[in-house]
Amino acid sequence: MKQNIYDNETFFKGYNNLRKSGVNYNDFVEQPAIKSAITDLHQKKVLDLGCGTGQFATYCVENGASKVIGVDISKNMIKKATIENAHERIEYICSPIEELDLKNIKFDLIFSFLAVHYIEDYPALIEKVHRLLEYRGEFIFSTEHPIVTARKEMNNWVKDEDDNKLHWAVDDYHEEGKREQHWFIDGVIKYHRTLSTLINTLISNGFVIEGIMEPQSGPDGLEQMPKLINEKRRPSFFVIKSRKCS
Amino acid sequence: MKQNIYDNETFFKGYNNLRKSGVNYNDFVEQPAIKSAITDLHQKKVLDLGCGTGQFATYCVENGASKVIGVDISKNMIKKATIENAHERIEYICSPIEELDLKNIKFDLIFSFLAVHYIEDYPALIEKVHRLLEYRGEFIFSTEHPIVTARKEMNNWVKDEDDNKLHWAVDDYHEEGKREQHWFIDGVIKYHRTLSTLINTLISNGFVIEGIMEPQSGPDGLEQMPKLINEKRRPSFFVIKSRKCS
Repeated sequence: MKQNIYDNETFFKGYNNLRKSGVNYNDFVEQPAIKSAITDLHQKKVLDLGCGTGQFATYCVENGASKVIGVDISKNMIKKATIENAHERIEYICSPIEELDLKNIKFDLIFSFLAVHYIEDYPALIEKVHRLLEYRGEFIFSTEHPIVTARKEMNNWVKDEDDNKLHWAVDDYHEEGKREQHWFIDGVIKYHRTLSTLINTLISNGFVIEGIMEPQSGPDGLEQMPKLINEKRRPSFFVIKSRKCS
Repeated sequence: MKQNIYDNETFFKGYNNLRKSGVNYNDFVEQPAIKSAITDLHQKKVLDLGCGTGQFATYCVENGASKVIGVDISKNMIKKATIENAHERIEYICSPIEELDLKNIKFDLIFSFLAVHYIEDYPALIEKVHRLLEYRGEFIFSTEHPIVTARKEMNNWVKDEDDNKLHWAVDDYHEEGKREQHWFIDGVIKYHRTLSTLINTLISNGFVIEGIMEPQSGPDGLEQMPKLINEKRRPSFFVIKSRKCS
């Protein structure tokens, strides 16, 4: 059974409030980085792994994509997507990414935003992405930074008595695997992987690394959400842009 | 004036004792990783940037290299190299890497071991390496891991009252630049760079990333130097294997 926190009622409510607020890490840190990495969507066939409520699918068709397939494990998310981000060139599929089975279609671009750290078998994911991509197609994804996921005892700002952040704690770096966390609900499972694993698995599967990003917030985000200044102290996200070259 | 700690008497004595002991991070962690990344030295022209006492230069000629040039800023190191690791196919040059000027020769392989973090202008270094490499030549180097160099207040094991290591402290990640440290002597200057800078500068200069490593010790090292177990908790070194492809 794949983890499906987004269909937990408490989680979904919390998550939706966060995203609705328009003041969150995704909008100010992660999404601008992803969008800056995209060179061209025009006439492209796009797959979005972990599409959530379909905002990015809409962004793709608005920027010229000829076809977008959005995949998400959560019925809640897909339902919301079909209401809020319906379009004749967008198709939504409710499925765990791991069990996705698409035939007779290959994509020019595959995206995945902050979903890879929920997936246990990273090499299997990369093989699947490789299979689903056209030759020279691009895979661009974000994941939690290994600096953030490494320590088993998570939430790692070490603070003084006055609640000032002293530094970020790293530990257990080379012990890849499960990390359990509270995020709206208890028992959210993420998977820690080292930078070497994230990058080398792509290379050994025929991808060329075109760039990596450890995004920070721009001035807008810093104004509306001052705590984003902490992204300078340790990066939350890790973005890889890669291309299928063999 | 480039930093030349290796010609400081106190430093050189301390450093030599460390290397002579045969029980150190280089021999158990960093060098095995580098050597595992080398596919073929046979008939290769090799440049070693920061060659120290020439041990690796000797390793290269013993493994078939047709020519090795070793470069080091330190007169002490080069003097020792010409005594201990002299060979008709090895040439030593005493020069800061930054000021190295070689004409009429290009290399198949360029190495640099734990020297890049002493160099202020990383893009200039990468441009120089690119100029000195044959097309399809490889650049393999190790540097201190950004997890290790990030925090301005260095030596970052946070310990409890009984001197047990609790975790590793990271901070100031996106503030690249100078870090001052005590290593045998006060005032050793290193330069912190993010992972994105280390990798993207190579890519934008025409290199393809062939793999990265965050090496740990093998069983031998762990037996002779039990504290190497801490490399599992946070990596000290970062190794990049890259190839000039345009």
